[in-house]
Amino acid sequence: MKKSKPTILVVNDDGITAPGIKALIEVMQELGNVVVVAPDSPQSGMGHAITIAKPLRLDKIQLYDGVEMYKCSGTPVDCVKLAVNKIFKGKKPDLCVSGINHGLNNSINVIYSGTMSAAVEGAIESIPSIGFSLDDFTYDADFSNCKKYVKAIASQVLEHGLQEGTLLNVNFPNGNAIKGIKICRQANAKWAEEFDERIDPHKRNYYWLTGVFQNNDHGEDTDVWALENHYVSVVPVQFDMTAHHAIQTLNSWKFNV
Amino acid sequence: MKKSKPTILVVNDDGITAPGIKALIEVMQELGNVVVVAPDSPQSGMGHAITIAKPLRLDKIQLYDGVEMYKCSGTPVDCVKLAVNKIFKGKKPDLCVSGINHGLNNSINVIYSGTMSAAVEGAIESIPSIGFSLDDFTYDADFSNCKKYVKAIASQVLEHGLQEGTLLNVNFPNGNAIKGIKICRQANAKWAEEFDERIDPHKRNYYWLTGVFQNNDHGEDTDVWALENHYVSVVPVQFDMTAHHAIQTLNSWKFNV
Repeated sequence: MKKSKPTILVVNDDGITAPGIKALIEVMQELGNVVVVAPDSPQSGMGHAITIAKPLRLDKIQLYDGVEMYKCSGTPVDCVKLAVNKIFKGKKPDLCVSGINHGLNNSINVIYSGTMSAAVEGAIESIPSIGFSLDDFTYDADFSNCKKYVKAIASQVLEHGLQEGTLLNVNFPNGNAIKGIKICRQANAKWAEEFDERIDPHKRNYYWLTGVFQNNDHGEDTDVWALENHYVSVVPVQFDMTAHHAIQTLNSWKFNV
Repeated sequence: MKKSKPTILVVNDDGITAPGIKALIEVMQELGNVVVVAPDSPQSGMGHAITIAKPLRLDKIQLYDGVEMYKCSGTPVDCVKLAVNKIFKGKKPDLCVSGINHGLNNSINVIYSGTMSAAVEGAIESIPSIGFSLDDFTYDADFSNCKKYVKAIASQVLEHGLQEGTLLNVNFPNGNAIKGIKICRQANAKWAEEFDERIDPHKRNYYWLTGVFQNNDHGEDTDVWALENHYVSVVPVQFDMTAHHAIQTLNSWKFNV
């Protein structure tokens, strides 16, 4: 018996006109019926921000033939919330994919990334969700080498589903020498901030946030290791942030109240 | 031998003029030398957003006697990054406290909350960090019942430290009938979104994000349970979002590439 085609929500954080979301839409059209809800402007680094102090716009637009598309004035997470509530109206899509991001979202970047936060929100809504990112932040990034892996991973998620409360963070190395797929854990790495301090024409200081990615994790089971060794990294992510292993220690503390 | 007074970074997401941060400053002045770096405007719901597409301002101001204070044009996470890099200049504070938030940040709110994200960023910077929130989102919220618990919890963290990669999410029930402190896990709850759809004077639709908090977790070891039963909830939080329990299943998948 032939199954009906799945419905697939496509989101991103680079904005609805980004080449990365176009590449993702093209792959998803091979797998199901696509609905795109994406920010009307770049939203990189927005993390899990939601818009509560101002109203949101959601407007249907036509960019690519045969694709139902909406642009949203809010954050990537707002896009998912509006899609679920106002477009799907409670009949949830079978899959939520975010990206393909221009730039890596491995390791600690999962927490800063609008791309990943949109996928996390999909998972909170109990939709099987995947974030995809490529190690090339330029507008002209070449997504052609990613496409067969995007299709393979999304197909497996459509077939098997994902454990409740989990989603996937998929990152692609740049270039065409991809060796395969590795299931990984998030590397214990961080950004060492550097602020570029400047003086404006009115003689006041201002700062540009920049930084250097520092990996202090020598494990060979991490996403950083996989990418450095030309593998596609796949990290299962959860939104239960409880540090369960710390509960016992805290229970031994004597609070002097 | 008397130890030197600890240095304490105080941040929030409600903005530097909020009564909640004033209450937190007052308690921290009893424990150490306080430096405040907080947003110059409300940043509720900003999650772990960072500012990369525009520059940041950081200006010293004087609000409360004897307290070193800076207002920042960015997000709560930007505040922590600027504090570490431009104010402490690498000599990290002994403690980072965020809040006291006007409104609960228990359960899934840890991921949407600017208050908690600032504390998470403190932990990423290897600073023992705590976020505090009260179940009252009004400007006139009464923080007086929280103060002795804030002091007791912060004192324990200063004494014992926290395990690397972890921080604390502390929430207070409203009212004066607090029964004590419970160490908890994050409840498996979520927001059911509702968008309030309106029409502007130019005949275009717009949406206000609202929602209803839905707890589907009947455990008595959760923060939701603790708060409903008039306890202060303390959840240890981690920023490794890897769903380690899902790795084995994913390794059994056959990717058709």
